[in-house]
Amino acid sequence: MAKKEKQFVAEITPMEVDFAQWYTDVILKTDLVDYSPVKGFMVIKPYGYAIWENIQQYMDKRFKETGHKNCYFPLLIPESLLKKEAEHVEGFAPEVAWVTHGGQEELAERLCVRPTSETIICEMYSKWLKSYRDLPFLYNQWCSVVRWEKSTRPFLRTSEFLWQEGHTLHETYDEAQGETLQMLNIYKETAEELLAMPVVVGQKSDKEKFAGAHATYTMEALMHDGKALQAGTSHNLAQHFTSAFDITFLDRDGELKHPYHTSWGVSTRLIGGIIMVHGDNRGLVLPPGIAPVQTVIVPIAAHKGGVMEKVDELFRELKDTMRVEVDDRDNYSPGWKFNEWEMKGVPVRIEIGPKDIENNQAILFRRDTLEKEVVALDEVKERVGVLLKEIHNNLLLKAKNMRDEKTYYIKSFDEMKGIMETKPGFVKAAWCQERACEDKIKAETGASVRCIPFEQEKLGDTCPFCGKEAKIMAYFAKAY
Amino acid sequence: MAKKEKQFVAEITPMEVDFAQWYTDVILKTDLVDYSPVKGFMVIKPYGYAIWENIQQYMDKRFKETGHKNCYFPLLIPESLLKKEAEHVEGFAPEVAWVTHGGQEELAERLCVRPTSETIICEMYSKWLKSYRDLPFLYNQWCSVVRWEKSTRPFLRTSEFLWQEGHTLHETYDEAQGETLQMLNIYKETAEELLAMPVVVGQKSDKEKFAGAHATYTMEALMHDGKALQAGTSHNLAQHFTSAFDITFLDRDGELKHPYHTSWGVSTRLIGGIIMVHGDNRGLVLPPGIAPVQTVIVPIAAHKGGVMEKVDELFRELKDTMRVEVDDRDNYSPGWKFNEWEMKGVPVRIEIGPKDIENNQAILFRRDTLEKEVVALDEVKERVGVLLKEIHNNLLLKAKNMRDEKTYYIKSFDEMKGIMETKPGFVKAAWCQERACEDKIKAETGASVRCIPFEQEKLGDTCPFCGKEAKIMAYFAKAY
Ligand SMILES: [Zn+2]
Ligand SMILES: [Zn+2]
Repeated sequence: MAKKEKQFVAEITPMEVDFAQWYTDVILKTDLVDYSPVKGFMVIKPYGYAIWENIQQYMDKRFKETGHKNCYFPLLIPESLLKKEAEHVEGFAPEVAWVTHGGQEELAERLCVRPTSETIICEMYSKWLKSYRDLPFLYNQWCSVVRWEKSTRPFLRTSEFLWQEGHTLHETYDEAQGETLQMLNIYKETAEELLAMPVVVGQKSDKEKFAGAHATYTMEALMHDGKALQAGTSHNLAQHFTSAFDITFLDRDGELKHPYHTSWGVSTRLIGGIIMVHGDNRGLVLPPGIAPVQTVIVPIAAHKGGVMEKVDELFRELKDTMRVEVDDRDNYSPGWKFNEWEMKGVPVRIEIGPKDIENNQAILFRRDTLEKEVVALDEVKERVGVLLKEIHNNLLLKAKNMRDEKTYYIKSFDEMKGIMETKPGFVKAAWCQERACEDKIKAETGASVRCIPFEQEKLGDTCPFCGKEAKIMAYFAKAY
Repeated sequence: MAKKEKQFVAEITPMEVDFAQWYTDVILKTDLVDYSPVKGFMVIKPYGYAIWENIQQYMDKRFKETGHKNCYFPLLIPESLLKKEAEHVEGFAPEVAWVTHGGQEELAERLCVRPTSETIICEMYSKWLKSYRDLPFLYNQWCSVVRWEKSTRPFLRTSEFLWQEGHTLHETYDEAQGETLQMLNIYKETAEELLAMPVVVGQKSDKEKFAGAHATYTMEALMHDGKALQAGTSHNLAQHFTSAFDITFLDRDGELKHPYHTSWGVSTRLIGGIIMVHGDNRGLVLPPGIAPVQTVIVPIAAHKGGVMEKVDELFRELKDTMRVEVDDRDNYSPGWKFNEWEMKGVPVRIEIGPKDIENNQAILFRRDTLEKEVVALDEVKERVGVLLKEIHNNLLLKAKNMRDEKTYYIKSFDEMKGIMETKPGFVKAAWCQERACEDKIKAETGASVRCIPFEQEKLGDTCPFCGKEAKIMAYFAKAY
């Protein structure tokens, strides 16, 4: 490593030394995000926001292909509405921001800034729904929500975050359940096909489910430090809210009924997941699907005759099929630029200098493996296209291997304690499914039930934590 | 008019009878919007939101083509930041919503829900800007803002609305002025090329400019009822905020300087403009560029053999080049559907029944002129493509003619009073440009200075309102 390069990389704390500091260094140095003057609120800078736009674009298309339409519901929710569903208010009231004054006047009823929109949306749905012919309602909104958090970290847990929230109504329980699982599956495919982030999917325990849900389904990803990240949830709300809000429809049989209800959401938290699954000690490693810059062209000896002409030619050749940029800044050396773009996680770098032009070639560098290759100039476009796919596949494979290495089966509570203390990761175990047992595991190891996976394995007849009869197998982990 | 059709149309109050009621009827009957439980807050329903998405998509592309990037700043702004720029706080403090409690605790400093984001953005820019090499900053955000309004009407004036706000920093005054006018021009092109809505562009009077601006530029459209709508504004903020927030950069000459600053925004108010410029007594007339459904195919005698096959074939032929839908509902007659889609403003309707199929033809209906034509089936795709362009051009022309018919030159205050009482519209007049005169015009006629247009005309040497020397010519109107 050259001296200059070392200095550059030295600005990022190695993840083995302090993972939390590594994360903070990476997000700040790469201009993804900044702290705002309001504690717990983040500013998403252009480089971070462009990642979110790429996620939005992919997901919005998936939502629309499955019949969903976007709409927009108010930011502020009257306290009386928040209180209508008992479990829901209990879960959310302690962490909402309250508006008490509008203009110069004190409000007769205080309004909360939406922490999630089930209540205001159900209030509107109760006005809109008349007949079974109107069903299903398949609506989604992209917005920001506020949850007053005591301890925050950008992207992972902030008092305000951006997300999408889908809210649907259906004629039958089965249809609602089908929707809940369909959306979870779209989330899973987004994680794997766009973000190269493998996930475990399954159901939340009663303790961990959404406040007011009949059943919550989740996708859980494992980070480099062995902690799990809940990366998206889909809730079957059954008739909990539709009866509390008295939403009814005239069914085929002439009876008035409450419809079945789902909600589902993913947030800017996904960006935190991308960073902690793929990043390394040089900084970000971005999956090509969401990288704001997929390919950067760095000219070498740009002042020499013919270099910038060739760079411009290549840029024009690539720009319609990928997000490509030319780094033509004249106040930085090529070496400095290489380091900066590596830190920023750009999947492919193209280097072109006078000697390359002489040899009718360019040098391609891939961020995931740090390997270089020489490619004939007229093959660059095709090769970069292939490389971007290869990089995605390699990142997904590496992340799967990392997860599998950090996934353990355990047969005893002591084994579990040892793992959580020394080499945290996913722990698979048979489980009694009882709340008291779950609380004890959390208290003694810091791990929670991440999910009861759809892919059940037979791991034993007895709960290793309490000795009672095991009912299912579950994934346990410390979590963000 | 058939009896059924009459009943359908009868649900909308004619605009000549009561324009405000016509507007309310149209927006509610066509499912653009609904009232929420919080006074002054609206719900944007899928049909209305789809229009906003089409506007966003077009504008976002224009912003990015001119070098702007999106980002996201916090929803809540500390009161101390709002107060930093004196004119700004005076303008906005009376109409903001205040968050006083987070979770269970009262906040040490209250936070306002952003009414606009100059203050929080300048606070961040002061951390980010170091050198002239960092300039320009060209950032934009799409978000919602809250302004506590006493009297509200969906899209036109609501306590919460969706918008984009661009915020840029530049090395020189001239560059900031160039940016201000460039963005106003993009707004003007959006209005005319996407929304078919002609606008007058020019500068706001000192009274009407943005709180804290050096100069505000605006585009003003004229509605069917002769009232003006401020449809987008672009502000040259000079160094008002950058000095208040102590934003500095090291310039080429080694001196620390305050950069020059602009901001610019359009909002969901544009949707109100589209409705009031193009709509008629049957309901919406949507410009093709933003119509959620550009073409609807209505099968006639859908149960007859071959009809749905032909409809599906046509749908598949059209769907890649336009937003097309098939109305295959079996519980409504074709006539009912015709009326509903006309009310919803869909630019082109295609009717196909057994007789049409026999004759290898379809019937095309255009919403703007209510004309029908018969077209050979294999020419439908090409013809509809042409029709959509024709409809746009015709809507723009009609709106220009409407505006010109309602635009008056006046030579005396009495003339002005008569016009505002009997046939409101744009009034062009020479003007002294004095605040006292402006206040008097407003008090006695209800009209305000809409703008001092870039296209100045010589209308006289004396201000017709006060008799002083005229300095410029201005547009006056009653306004939303
Ligand atoms: Zn147990
Ligand atoms: Zn005057």
